[in-house]
Amino acid sequence: MGEAADKRADGTNPAIDFRTEPARYRHWKLAADGDTATLTMDVDERAGLLGGYELKLNSYDLGVDIELADAIERLRFEHPQVKVVIMRSAKDRVFCAGANIRMLASATHAHKVNFCKFTNETRNSIEEASELSDQKYLCVVNGTAAGGGYELALACDHIMLVDDGAAAVSLPELPLLAVLPGTGGLTRVTDKRKVRRDRADVFCTTEEGVKGKRAVEWRLVDEVMPRSKLDEAVAARTQAIAAKASARNGQGIADRGIALTPIERKRTPDSNEYKYLSVEFERDNRLATITLRGPDSPAPADASELTRQGAASWLLQIARELDDAILDIRLNELEVATLVFKSTGDPQAVLEHTMALDSFDHWLAREIRLKWRRVLKRIDMTSRSLATLIEPGSCFAGLLAELIFAADRSYMLIGEIKGDNRAPASIILSDANLDRYPMSNGLSRLATRFLGEPEALDAARDALGKPLDAEEADALGLITAALDDIDWEDEVRLFLEERASFSPDGLTGMEANLRFAGPETMETKIFARLTAWQNWIFQRPNAVGPDGALTRYGSGQKPNFDLKRV
Amino acid sequence: MGEAADKRADGTNPAIDFRTEPARYRHWKLAADGDTATLTMDVDERAGLLGGYELKLNSYDLGVDIELADAIERLRFEHPQVKVVIMRSAKDRVFCAGANIRMLASATHAHKVNFCKFTNETRNSIEEASELSDQKYLCVVNGTAAGGGYELALACDHIMLVDDGAAAVSLPELPLLAVLPGTGGLTRVTDKRKVRRDRADVFCTTEEGVKGKRAVEWRLVDEVMPRSKLDEAVAARTQAIAAKASARNGQGIADRGIALTPIERKRTPDSNEYKYLSVEFERDNRLATITLRGPDSPAPADASELTRQGAASWLLQIARELDDAILDIRLNELEVATLVFKSTGDPQAVLEHTMALDSFDHWLAREIRLKWRRVLKRIDMTSRSLATLIEPGSCFAGLLAELIFAADRSYMLIGEIKGDNRAPASIILSDANLDRYPMSNGLSRLATRFLGEPEALDAARDALGKPLDAEEADALGLITAALDDIDWEDEVRLFLEERASFSPDGLTGMEANLRFAGPETMETKIFARLTAWQNWIFQRPNAVGPDGALTRYGSGQKPNFDLKRV
Repeated sequence: MGEAADKRADGTNPAIDFRTEPARYRHWKLAADGDTATLTMDVDERAGLLGGYELKLNSYDLGVDIELADAIERLRFEHPQVKVVIMRSAKDRVFCAGANIRMLASATHAHKVNFCKFTNETRNSIEEASELSDQKYLCVVNGTAAGGGYELALACDHIMLVDDGAAAVSLPELPLLAVLPGTGGLTRVTDKRKVRRDRADVFCTTEEGVKGKRAVEWRLVDEVMPRSKLDEAVAARTQAIAAKASARNGQGIADRGIALTPIERKRTPDSNEYKYLSVEFERDNRLATITLRGPDSPAPADASELTRQGAASWLLQIARELDDAILDIRLNELEVATLVFKSTGDPQAVLEHTMALDSFDHWLAREIRLKWRRVLKRIDMTSRSLATLIEPGSCFAGLLAELIFAADRSYMLIGEIKGDNRAPASIILSDANLDRYPMSNGLSRLATRFLGEPEALDAARDALGKPLDAEEADALGLITAALDDIDWEDEVRLFLEERASFSPDGLTGMEANLRFAGPETMETKIFARLTAWQNWIFQRPNAVGPDGALTRYGSGQKPNFDLKRV
Repeated sequence: MGEAADKRADGTNPAIDFRTEPARYRHWKLAADGDTATLTMDVDERAGLLGGYELKLNSYDLGVDIELADAIERLRFEHPQVKVVIMRSAKDRVFCAGANIRMLASATHAHKVNFCKFTNETRNSIEEASELSDQKYLCVVNGTAAGGGYELALACDHIMLVDDGAAAVSLPELPLLAVLPGTGGLTRVTDKRKVRRDRADVFCTTEEGVKGKRAVEWRLVDEVMPRSKLDEAVAARTQAIAAKASARNGQGIADRGIALTPIERKRTPDSNEYKYLSVEFERDNRLATITLRGPDSPAPADASELTRQGAASWLLQIARELDDAILDIRLNELEVATLVFKSTGDPQAVLEHTMALDSFDHWLAREIRLKWRRVLKRIDMTSRSLATLIEPGSCFAGLLAELIFAADRSYMLIGEIKGDNRAPASIILSDANLDRYPMSNGLSRLATRFLGEPEALDAARDALGKPLDAEEADALGLITAALDDIDWEDEVRLFLEERASFSPDGLTGMEANLRFAGPETMETKIFARLTAWQNWIFQRPNAVGPDGALTRYGSGQKPNFDLKRV
């Protein structure tokens, strides 16, 4: 956005900005027409985000994926009538060459890991749109779909591949670069497309990939056709999917969407200020405090009022602001150890907004709920310690109360603070805390919390709608501890100091294990299992050392491997 | 065993030998008395396996765990009448201090990872004995149970903790060493004992751990009692568990077990020779070929005959030999890229042995089946590429056919080889391939293979008992490819050469993802998720660098961390 303050903390590079809009896209074109939209990838090779590499052959970096994520979200909010999204390439005989290798070779470990995490979230959002917003993705592979290019196709519902003796899908990361496909490719091959494991083994070790009929037989793609029949086949398939969609009963099918107006953010060296949200950085203490402000107007009476408010409706705007704040910290504030969530406002008003949103049987309400679902999952997946502080004057009710259960720990202050006239803190639960906003393990945060004590979940259900003070919340097991004003400051300070003193790597691993008890899903497999292996491999000399495959790629020199199998 | 040839390939260190027996234990005492046994940990601090450290305070290294694994197995085969195993410490006010930190700090990355894998398998075998052999483990924590010490307790059914103001359970790895508990501690806290995640967070970041009533309230232990009441409480609890056990109807309750006689192994520089198994090393090609030999006598007619044969019965002996061969390669042959499984013998005879074993409703048959289950899982978890070559004269039937489905790829030769009079290869499936020997994901290898094509699983079921030639096996999807004798040698050689050329790390990560499609269990979470994170952390400078916490432990110097959260 060209703001002067948009620098990283260390001043080396402009901060990465996740806000964009179609008029500013460099790499994608989004065209919606009736119930069909086309999302065309046409990467501008000179417009790399970090510099020092060219984005040839529709290869991508984080900047390309930021636009894709934006387009997917706009399709849901701005073009809800769209039922089929055709994803295709504007390049000749190339669909997408995957993540840019030069970028990967030159990026820091932290950037690589955060890049993969964001691209994974984007691909999950495609699958969520298909499952819950009834927007199906049709992928047209007109040539090479390699690595991340094929992983993009894997996130779609239906993959069409040109059969011309050259076009192929492949996951060449292991043979070519000694790393793993980083965007869920292995997991989607085995668990979504359920490819036989020995075939998957052949596929993932074959640099040139698989093409033609074999690609269909192995279930790597859904259909192949000669290049001359491609347009016709795409049209027929699009029509078939759209016809199926209109035969289903959508949730209040919409003629037109709402505009996702730009998110305003004012940066100072130590803060980010949004309309309903402030982020304050105490970099010396490795802290970022995110304070959410309750609504400034009553809950919308019905879905029409919600639609009139559009992007300005409190629950949508604060969700978008929170998402931006989290992404900004992830990518631009690498040394922040702990995110502290606070809130200020009227808990009853937050409860009313939440209950209104949850009660509307309308596409926009559904999309706002799904946006919250994604933002909360993004928080779960953020590798920083998460703490929620519930103080007098706070408004952790309904949807905002989810932040209590998303946090690694939550502390609540008992009663008032001397000399402070704000009302004692209270928590109010609603249905939103029961099952509408599942984590990636498929369970609600409360159900995950109470896996070992189902009776506590029942007790929480009985307390819905009732303001709970610190001692009641503690008795119900909703918080880590209730503290009086004498202990509050010291206890909280000690906890935050301790967190900042621990190994950042150890905390990442520990939290990734403790946060996701219970069932596993394709998402948790990708984020926990695949990501952890990839992180390891991204750190090993065989990939990133001076003689490693990623370093030597394109140099004409073969990599030198440490041959020990570990 | 003091064999002169017992050296590692590089000559630096004696090979690690996994064979032991109670008379040679240095660290444990096993005493069985009626339906109760006591397994006493009394680590000899001067008897470290690798040298250069002292095993103080019942801390352990791989040598200690090899004895424990042996004891658990002997309890099942030699003392099947035992219903309660009391695990306790002979040290005063110390249960177990966990994995030895000096050992971890000085061991290679490969050793650390293999050490953790083996200790995890040992703990899983405790839980398997409890679930499937009806031997319940009672853990008596008489003092400190820190890190791996508490993880050992977590593998038991019931944890008793002395309440004396000092005795505590803890997972201090993160605060103390900047690594994770490596033996399933995090997963068992969240998924077995279902501890609330914020409490788990507090617990895992508190060096001194949790003691007394809070340990019970948080479900970290099952009961606490004053030291003066400990013996009485243990006796009462033992009696209660044993009474419950005898009220259950065990599978042919046995008066006495069979002796697990020593496994004979003859080492040469390039081979390991067992009675029913040969391992040949081609180290230049990074290959180990394991050839299994079929039975040399008919299948036992009934369980009494099986009992008379005891450890010499073909299916038990070859399972134990295979287990030893795999462990030897894992720890002593680090550069082997690929394990090749071959077999020689009469497939019909293997089928008969398998079907006999599967048909006996007898404790020993059950234990041999469970041994096979563990060995096959050990193979699944081995981070080497696995290939099965099905050639003329081979006997991949019944249980041995599982090696076809455990492998990353399996190739089968069509017809005879010119100038070779052995019968063309055939595969024979039995019920053993359907559900008796699940992988750690809870599914059979065939069900995992055919996740995407349930009709193929039905077709395999219809083919039970029928010798299948290469083309039939290929048509049924049981093998990766059927090759004629013209292509065989070249194709196999190219595959094995290719495998040896890839990054060992990349292969480990890829195979760990491709082998375990489908559901996740506590075991897969531990092996895939926790292990991957731990591998990453074991590689990061914050743990193992010159200023890392593991390196600096005990030096009086604080670690210096790279503060970026990744």
